[in-house]
Amino acid sequence: MHVLITGAAGFIGSKLSKALAERGSLGDAAGKPVPISRITLLDVNEPRPPPDAAVEMRLQAGDIRDPEQLRSALTPGTKAVFHLAAVVSGQAEADFDLGMGINLDGTRTLLDACRELPEPPKLVFPSSVAVFGGEMPEVIRDDTLATPRTSYGAQKAICELMINDYTRKGFVDGRVMRLPTISVRPGKPNQAASTFASSILREPLQGEQAVCPVPVETGIWIMSPRRVIAALLHGCDLAAAMWGEQRILNLAGLTVTVREMLAAMERAAGTEALERVRMEPDQQITRIITGWPARFDSQRALGLGFQADADMDEVLRIFLEDDRITPGA
Amino acid sequence: MHVLITGAAGFIGSKLSKALAERGSLGDAAGKPVPISRITLLDVNEPRPPPDAAVEMRLQAGDIRDPEQLRSALTPGTKAVFHLAAVVSGQAEADFDLGMGINLDGTRTLLDACRELPEPPKLVFPSSVAVFGGEMPEVIRDDTLATPRTSYGAQKAICELMINDYTRKGFVDGRVMRLPTISVRPGKPNQAASTFASSILREPLQGEQAVCPVPVETGIWIMSPRRVIAALLHGCDLAAAMWGEQRILNLAGLTVTVREMLAAMERAAGTEALERVRMEPDQQITRIITGWPARFDSQRALGLGFQADADMDEVLRIFLEDDRITPGA
Repeated sequence: MHVLITGAAGFIGSKLSKALAERGSLGDAAGKPVPISRITLLDVNEPRPPPDAAVEMRLQAGDIRDPEQLRSALTPGTKAVFHLAAVVSGQAEADFDLGMGINLDGTRTLLDACRELPEPPKLVFPSSVAVFGGEMPEVIRDDTLATPRTSYGAQKAICELMINDYTRKGFVDGRVMRLPTISVRPGKPNQAASTFASSILREPLQGEQAVCPVPVETGIWIMSPRRVIAALLHGCDLAAAMWGEQRILNLAGLTVTVREMLAAMERAAGTEALERVRMEPDQQITRIITGWPARFDSQRALGLGFQADADMDEVLRIFLEDDRITPGA
Repeated sequence: MHVLITGAAGFIGSKLSKALAERGSLGDAAGKPVPISRITLLDVNEPRPPPDAAVEMRLQAGDIRDPEQLRSALTPGTKAVFHLAAVVSGQAEADFDLGMGINLDGTRTLLDACRELPEPPKLVFPSSVAVFGGEMPEVIRDDTLATPRTSYGAQKAICELMINDYTRKGFVDGRVMRLPTISVRPGKPNQAASTFASSILREPLQGEQAVCPVPVETGIWIMSPRRVIAALLHGCDLAAAMWGEQRILNLAGLTVTVREMLAAMERAAGTEALERVRMEPDQQITRIITGWPARFDSQRALGLGFQADADMDEVLRIFLEDDRITPGA
């Protein structure tokens, strides 16, 4: 089968293309593993192939809003699409039209391009905790109403509904997974309101200073990059029948407070690391973050075989093993 | 103020333009009545003005998907828009692209045209019980998750989220009301799956034969046209502060079974009328209709001053008073 990854130059896209190339197979509609013969990496920035990939990699730089780009990225053999291309929360809030263009129109364009394929491909779509906001129950369940209070969240919730309906119509075989905030992300801070959830750990562990813009008692629902990749692959592998009619799923994440995150870092790297974090409350970010729920009843995800990180120490160990850039390197 | 009605040539549009012209005013952002100086009727079919309208009426035939049509229908003085243009459920299911085009793209185009106005207009949008489906609680509450199982329902749910976010951003002042199935609609059957909820009453009361495609024990959540118009006007009149952050509302409707509908008709027009109804179950329609919920806890709507029809006898009386075409006339 052929596989397409959009937003492939991002950090999840890079880790996913590496994991797919190493694995060499994906589940078909019935969940049976089928060899991958080609992976197409599409991104607005020139994507780079994973080193030493044993699978044929096609690289394509292009805009997700352009139907022609998508038609050329998809082949009659495309059986799975990982649609990671997105504008992050802070950016979608600051530039409404860009968010609507990439997050909504881009997804619609992709769905319509998938409809033209001879067979409905699996479509894996990471959604977000940002579909929740405002008045919410204390614990979010699978049947909790999505009440986004950011444009990013609204765009994700709209895409969820579109993918569910395109799936019902048999145009795609959609699998929507609402991701917790990813921590610890490698690289640099981005425009996501939640970027601090990585930078307050990543920077100190790499010998740099960091700013924490929210109070230490702030609760947050997180997942390590390794678990995110595993979840996207598992969600794709699962037979269509396991997903059933409702293709929108809250993943199983780890609920921690910022205080617990910092305490785990102190255990892992000492007081020295902790002292690199400066508390500098930012009202705008605190408002967005405390508007997102932190506690989930992830019954359905666990029943489908998805897994959460065990604890904050594991989350940090994964960062140190997979992504830390040694200070001075 | 100027008022725009889209889908103005439809039956709700016609009743609404008549009611607005008679009333001559609408609430402003604070709920204070302001005189209406002009009503623009936009429809893909040439709209007709209500007879003897005391308010200036502008008639415009045009496609809701065309930004130029919307720009010319809106004026700097437009303070309220009733967005009624839509493709009905059966048609949106049969022609997916038409449904997406009118119900989703049309609404988006309207929202973007409203953004260009000097002041965010009130935007009244009738949504539908069709946003629900699949596994649901027995009684639908205001915080029940929307789980559409038709393209029409998905498109309505998507528009709800868009309008809520455009409102949050200050681009429009949205008011989304989920309407029960309207009964008794005047005129002819249409392509809505729910069209029988009117035709099994309207046709016999007008001396004609009718077919009932669902079992008599089927429950259905209904509202008379008179109450629908009252609800749209009340929803528009209300101060923005009364609506608050969550602009999506389940209206208060009347829950009845088909058996109760027919019994009320027998009371109103005798056995003769009842005998004009032939039971002819249709699996496709029954599947759609029984997939919609029939029982609602309409706490918020009632608290905001919306009202349901008292009983089935009242619903029939309203039809006889407002809309019945006397047999042979």
